[in-house]
Amino acid sequence: MALIVQKYGGTSVGTIERIKNVADRVIRTQREGSQVVVVVSAMAGKTDELIGLANEITRTPDPREMDVLLATGEQVSIALLSMALKEKGVEARSYLGGQAGIITDDAFGKARIQSIAAEAIKRDLDAGRVVVVAGFQGIDEQNNITTLGRGGSDTTAVALAAALKADICEIYTDVEGVFTTDPNVYRKARKIEKISYEEMLEMSSMGAKVLQIRSVEFAKKYNVVLHVRSSFTDEPGTIVCQEDEEMEDVLVSGVTYNKNEAKITIKNLPDRPGIAARIFSEIGKANIVVDMIIQTPSTQGGHANLTFTVPIGDYEQTLKITEKLARELDAGDVVGYEDIAKISIIGVGMRSHTNIASKMFEALANEGINIMMISTSEIKISCLIEQKYTELAVRALHDAFELDKPPREDT
Amino acid sequence: MALIVQKYGGTSVGTIERIKNVADRVIRTQREGSQVVVVVSAMAGKTDELIGLANEITRTPDPREMDVLLATGEQVSIALLSMALKEKGVEARSYLGGQAGIITDDAFGKARIQSIAAEAIKRDLDAGRVVVVAGFQGIDEQNNITTLGRGGSDTTAVALAAALKADICEIYTDVEGVFTTDPNVYRKARKIEKISYEEMLEMSSMGAKVLQIRSVEFAKKYNVVLHVRSSFTDEPGTIVCQEDEEMEDVLVSGVTYNKNEAKITIKNLPDRPGIAARIFSEIGKANIVVDMIIQTPSTQGGHANLTFTVPIGDYEQTLKITEKLARELDAGDVVGYEDIAKISIIGVGMRSHTNIASKMFEALANEGINIMMISTSEIKISCLIEQKYTELAVRALHDAFELDKPPREDT
Repeated sequence: MALIVQKYGGTSVGTIERIKNVADRVIRTQREGSQVVVVVSAMAGKTDELIGLANEITRTPDPREMDVLLATGEQVSIALLSMALKEKGVEARSYLGGQAGIITDDAFGKARIQSIAAEAIKRDLDAGRVVVVAGFQGIDEQNNITTLGRGGSDTTAVALAAALKADICEIYTDVEGVFTTDPNVYRKARKIEKISYEEMLEMSSMGAKVLQIRSVEFAKKYNVVLHVRSSFTDEPGTIVCQEDEEMEDVLVSGVTYNKNEAKITIKNLPDRPGIAARIFSEIGKANIVVDMIIQTPSTQGGHANLTFTVPIGDYEQTLKITEKLARELDAGDVVGYEDIAKISIIGVGMRSHTNIASKMFEALANEGINIMMISTSEIKISCLIEQKYTELAVRALHDAFELDKPPREDT
Repeated sequence: MALIVQKYGGTSVGTIERIKNVADRVIRTQREGSQVVVVVSAMAGKTDELIGLANEITRTPDPREMDVLLATGEQVSIALLSMALKEKGVEARSYLGGQAGIITDDAFGKARIQSIAAEAIKRDLDAGRVVVVAGFQGIDEQNNITTLGRGGSDTTAVALAAALKADICEIYTDVEGVFTTDPNVYRKARKIEKISYEEMLEMSSMGAKVLQIRSVEFAKKYNVVLHVRSSFTDEPGTIVCQEDEEMEDVLVSGVTYNKNEAKITIKNLPDRPGIAARIFSEIGKANIVVDMIIQTPSTQGGHANLTFTVPIGDYEQTLKITEKLARELDAGDVVGYEDIAKISIIGVGMRSHTNIASKMFEALANEGINIMMISTSEIKISCLIEQKYTELAVRALHDAFELDKPPREDT
């Protein structure tokens, strides 16, 4: 008998009507002969409502108490879904994170799962029950409630699928799957049938919001096959799994963009060993993650210009740190620029195909788009451009790599 | 160092502003040199909102899941109050029912506390922390969430006060204390300074909504001194404690009324041994609690009329059961009547004073109010009257026993 973990996001359980629909889908899956574990998020809007209450009290809520507060969102969902299942005549039982045996570290608000003791769930499944688990939450070893951070319900689902050795983990969301690019930006965006964990990780970190990165890492580590699909249709979505030969035939799987970075340049930095390390270690101490970096020779001899990007939310703080450092290091002006976008093409096929980078640069050049910075990984090439060209660049790259055509026709 | 348990009801934590006020009061109590355990209810309206969600799914929600759902209300309150305390610079820690070691039976929705393991709370108190406990909830031995039923937060507070051997248990509510009668019915109603557990129990069961009966039983059993007071003023409220000599000097402590019963009469019941037992055992099987009972000879020889009262919510069902029984037992008509009220006077002084009943009947007679049924206990006399005379009767009795005058002037 197959064991399926299904995860439903906040939109999928956003109203009582939708919760009833989820119940119908769960029941259908069970009737088709599978054991079903359902992981649910808080009803859409609920988490923001709770955060709003906390913020009326303080701008800096105690992290432990914040987790106690936020965990109620998923608790409401599991109770309501279990009631709906029982109302439809199906035996079901709700599990809080702690009841499901999900033990995490004690990093409130961003806890990491350390172990899962799923015996109770297994017993309920074997007794024919549907098991409904609160996503996003666990308990630490001192029995404190913890939460896994935004999108943590995906991680809960994948971790449970791994612990239960489930056949598949279905992630139900409000989009139909993973697309070659944002369909809001380009109407030719095509739903991807199958994608590797590595590509999915790059897509997620590049701004595709479908899956939380940590859940994909988890799936990759434990080889859990994911099926990302819509809770509003019966169409198949996108399978996320281990790379196979077929995938390598595809040059580029997707085009992503990210408008949430800003660029900072330190001019005329004395070109001495250890200076860059000093700068990035100071920024790192402030828990700011630097993304792209380039160093170019300055027109002033023995000096260099150092440019890097940081998340837009950390921009002001990074600017302050950098300006202070520039004075200390006897460097020139610090120049910040926010109106940038990072455009990336992603594909495992890059490993075995050449000339993909040049094809990308050419496509951008044909549209008159200047490239400010470039960074590459084994399966990704990113270019920093003026933000106003974002959509134009996405469409140009999508066309250049013929992403609107299904991969089978390519080969 | 004194240990004080404070319980704040839903109205007292009904808004963020009020939660902040509660935090101020808790901090003041701690600064005055006490260890403080705070028990809170769900924010006013929250529980009804959750019940509303469940009722959108089903009229008969699964009891286990209902408790999972309802327990979130108090969980939100403890998180917010703990945040508010920390924001004001006071160390605090929230406890769910289960975390506080409150173990109950598994009667979902009306669970009874079986034990409290309060070691963790004691450690936090000794470390100088304010401990904030979710009222109304616990866990059973299988780690399922349970709730204690409406008003259960009072019980949580009293049970914790007993387990921690607290010096006093303060019940903060939206009224100033226990009154000689409902101030909405008679403006001369006076706040009672001190009242015995027994009187409080009778007052509660007769419709005074200040304290949940079970919490008073608990307080009596473990001799926990209660202080019922308003969270909106600094005025002392009403102390509920063991009976003392002073209390015996008071003839009557309060007048209560209850409009939530209905009366049923079976006419011409064959007057045979065991017939009344048969009737009340059938009604009891339906979990309906009969209150007052009288049997009077019928005009038809060898027959009797049997009259009794039941809660208005059980009226229709009782009528059906009774009509069926009447046919089986070859009795006459069954007559129901809903427009009744039960008026009671309560006072431990009745034990040592005579003529209180006759004074009550006289006061009612003087207003032309007919008495349909009478029941008495050691410290209470109740009369069933036409509902339309309720307020008139309350005021007449309040005047007759001079309840507007403080007891010290009486003696």
